Amino acid sequence: MRGHDLISIRDLSNAAIEALFGLASEYAAEPNRRLHAAPDAISANLFYEPSTRTRMSFEAAMLRLGGQVINMTDPAASSAAKGETLADTVRIVEGYTDLIVLRHPREGAARVAAEFARIPVLNAGDGAREHPTQTLLDLYTIFQEKGRLAGVTVALCGDLKYGRTVHSLVQGLARFGAHVVCIAPPGLELPARFAQLLGSVESYPDFASAPLDACDVLYVTRLQKERFADAAEFARVQASYQVSKATLTRAQPDAIVLHPLPRVDELDYALDGDPRAAYFRQAAYGVPVRMALIAAVLGLRQIPVDPPVEVWTPDDAPFACPNPRCITHAEPGIPRRAETREGVHRCAYCEAKEEAACPVC
Amino acid sequence: MRGHDLISIRDLSNAAIEALFGLASEYAAEPNRRLHAAPDAISANLFYEPSTRTRMSFEAAMLRLGGQVINMTDPAASSAAKGETLADTVRIVEGYTDLIVLRHPREGAARVAAEFARIPVLNAGDGAREHPTQTLLDLYTIFQEKGRLAGVTVALCGDLKYGRTVHSLVQGLARFGAHVVCIAPPGLELPARFAQLLGSVESYPDFASAPLDACDVLYVTRLQKERFADAAEFARVQASYQVSKATLTRAQPDAIVLHPLPRVDELDYALDGDPRAAYFRQAAYGVPVRMALIAAVLGLRQIPVDPPVEVWTPDDAPFACPNPRCITHAEPGIPRRAETREGVHRCAYCEAKEEAACPVC
Amino acid sequence: MRGHDLISIRDLSNAAIEALFGLASEYAAEPNRRLHAAPDAISANLFYEPSTRTRMSFEAAMLRLGGQVINMTDPAASSAAKGETLADTVRIVEGYTDLIVLRHPREGAARVAAEFARIPVLNAGDGAREHPTQTLLDLYTIFQEKGRLAGVTVALCGDLKYGRTVHSLVQGLARFGAHVVCIAPPGLELPARFAQLLGSVESYPDFASAPLDACDVLYVTRLQKERFADAAEFARVQASYQVSKATLTRAQPDAIVLHPLPRVDELDYALDGDPRAAYFRQAAYGVPVRMALIAAVLGLRQIPVDPPVEVWTPDDAPFACPNPRCITHAEPGIPRRAETREGVHRCAYCEAKEEAACPVC
Repeated sequence: MRGHDLISIRDLSNAAIEALFGLASEYAAEPNRRLHAAPDAISANLFYEPSTRTRMSFEAAMLRLGGQVINMTDPAASSAAKGETLADTVRIVEGYTDLIVLRHPREGAARVAAEFARIPVLNAGDGAREHPTQTLLDLYTIFQEKGRLAGVTVALCGDLKYGRTVHSLVQGLARFGAHVVCIAPPGLELPARFAQLLGSVESYPDFASAPLDACDVLYVTRLQKERFADAAEFARVQASYQVSKATLTRAQPDAIVLHPLPRVDELDYALDGDPRAAYFRQAAYGVPVRMALIAAVLGLRQIPVDPPVEVWTPDDAPFACPNPRCITHAEPGIPRRAETREGVHRCAYCEAKEEAACPVC
Repeated sequence: MRGHDLISIRDLSNAAIEALFGLASEYAAEPNRRLHAAPDAISANLFYEPSTRTRMSFEAAMLRLGGQVINMTDPAASSAAKGETLADTVRIVEGYTDLIVLRHPREGAARVAAEFARIPVLNAGDGAREHPTQTLLDLYTIFQEKGRLAGVTVALCGDLKYGRTVHSLVQGLARFGAHVVCIAPPGLELPARFAQLLGSVESYPDFASAPLDACDVLYVTRLQKERFADAAEFARVQASYQVSKATLTRAQPDAIVLHPLPRVDELDYALDGDPRAAYFRQAAYGVPVRMALIAAVLGLRQIPVDPPVEVWTPDDAPFACPNPRCITHAEPGIPRRAETREGVHRCAYCEAKEEAACPVC
Repeated sequence: MRGHDLISIRDLSNAAIEALFGLASEYAAEPNRRLHAAPDAISANLFYEPSTRTRMSFEAAMLRLGGQVINMTDPAASSAAKGETLADTVRIVEGYTDLIVLRHPREGAARVAAEFARIPVLNAGDGAREHPTQTLLDLYTIFQEKGRLAGVTVALCGDLKYGRTVHSLVQGLARFGAHVVCIAPPGLELPARFAQLLGSVESYPDFASAPLDACDVLYVTRLQKERFADAAEFARVQASYQVSKATLTRAQPDAIVLHPLPRVDELDYALDGDPRAAYFRQAAYGVPVRMALIAAVLGLRQIPVDPPVEVWTPDDAPFACPNPRCITHAEPGIPRRAETREGVHRCAYCEAKEEAACPVC
């Protein structure tokens, strides 16, 4: 993977993911060491959006590998405030560092950065699109805690319609043969596009009706007030979505609870001391997983590059992306390109379909 | 002290403080070296409030020990802005780093962090409560500049009622047998609670009436406009509180002037070149003192842990903290606990008394 | 140069600049290494104004030398917000680090910092005055790309009246015997003060009329809307100032295009792939050039200190600086001093003439 970018979890074959997990476990065995693996390397954290966890976790990963980090975390205090394009910024930053970690509010931003930078770009979240290292650490957590991915039953709970984290995770779970059960309030169910990846999906409107006794993992996500008709409806649904010790009595005795964090009220604080509450361990796994990824793209360790999961065909016809949150609408100088996948034209950056304004649909 | 937290200066015995000072002097002897003492260590600077001096000083200390630092200095760009609790943040950050340095506007915040994190927490200031490393460096400065603490006469000048720095310093001076003279405008005198620690205290309303010739150290603090009835009263008092070369003519020939900085007008700029102006040396001592503390809690050097100065008795009865600035009012999921000290129930976090809304009183 | 400051390009003799370039080329030969040249050194980036490029470039330079960096990049979250003077801040920071890199909105700020700090201060931009490391990297880029400076013809294009970058560059080009052609819209021509340095200057109002075929280098700068009478006038001039592939057909076949960046519309994005578009290489040269400078002032490498280009005579008469953006108007405690150069009294900090409110004039 030396020199490669990671924009989407679909850029990685199953074999590459498994090799990364092996390397992550090696690093996880010595969590409080700084290695001398990357004494020459400097990474740039370009964060155009708030993030504590992801930014600090990438920073810790680079430091633990023996490298150094330069942060650009306040877009208001940067050249972006002077109107500089992302494409220009990454071509400047590649002169300073060996790696770019990018978080950006615009969908498709990471693909733009990867297209213009000659050094590896790791996507740390681009709008509502992809956040592949979160998916890697979620999969790694299940792999570590349950010993396998194939055949594990994972209940995805909460807002499954808008949650970026969940959409990527569904793809990963499907590829490794996990079973998925969906627990989502009416109107926030998993979009059909992602459900198709899983073959058939069982879907339940709340914890009460769901077969928790069949679940090995409860993956809980936040509900967001703005997705509901009114505050009363939000309060009613939220109350029924809190995972507590009582919820766990109906699950497998060794079922674990995951959450991408930050949480608000959906996990009872009384659960924190329970060994099945795995969400803080999950956060901590972010460091060895990101260490493995950085080591791979810097060429410190050999990780195979198999053909990516999806092959896209470039399409040179002019293309006006219908997604208003696409990076192409914010940047001059980027060619508006489409790519074709399974016969469908999509924006080469944010992947929105020609006719659809929303990449989630 | 390996693995211990530092929340209050009262967590340290006199023997521990003296051992830290010995170690600080060792580090101070090589001020421009980076040591290889902590090649594996990473600390997290979690600063929920502005600070240049304290944050940079902790960062320099960690770097000089050979370690690395991850900063989270803009709470608006962090998970806190998404509603994450401090207790959750520290449990995530402990997965990334080996040490947490915390500055927080809420009183008792550092005790909450220490209770939830399994790695050492160093309090870099929690609201109007404690700032123990400032106290350590103040005491160390007097120790270095005057050769001893016992028997040294220290004039505390300025706002002695609200100044967090002064309150902790009074406790430290009392424990090491220093003499204290108070010089404070009417209404801003040292609260009785702290005066009691000193036995008897001489108190003067201004420099003119104070016996400066008996003083070895003038510890000057800022007056804050908002503490005064009106702007005219503030201007009148402030003018009489400026320490200048003229003020020093009435003090011991080798009396030194300290200030926790930043200053505004209370120290005449013409004083800066005088060797008795020790406030920039005082700021510089912050680095070796914090190096010693970090080395102690990371277990790089053996510093004895004697019984702390105060022993608190946990009290499991429910307790509603009366202090509106207490961290317990901002965080769900924290048990509201009291502890008993000398027969008085106090909040286990901010130490407010059951009946008093103000922890200073 | 050990222990020296760099405030203005005029602080460096031609021999010193050439020695720095030699050292920069040595560093540029190994762009992706971290050296062990400065294992003990820590620098402080004190940035009171937004900057991505300059700050990250200085940070990368220090890290590539094997040193460490402490950032203070958000003045709102710092002691400056509490009213601390720059003179106080640098005297505190010198207790933490070995080097100060300063960016400040006030003219003359870097001279104040250098006067008060005992460690080297490098000026990373002070208001509309000086930005000497930008000038060094601009000169170094021409030197690297064209093999020499003497006899090279450089067209300076755009806003030549207000552009800080251009004014310093003119001085540098003049000293090394380059030829300069000016291309500036009416009203934005190079001020006479700088034109005099060049002897005679050819000046053209637009690209169409300029003898581009004689130019080896096109140095393009941004036009700023606020310098024009109205938006229509701005749009009209801006359109005629865009450098495109068509513009280059009229220049030397190997003419290169430079730009201090960020650009807005003055460079056609279609130019980016052309090997003559040297602006991203120019940005990347910032790292080895700043490495050389840091190595010189930290005494890691011997760079000769010849007499500076200008000798100023201190003048102790009181002086009220007429420049409203001068640092002396923002800081109490700074002596208002003048210095005399070629018989003219100027502010010792921002260099404004006694009778002139604008240091550019």
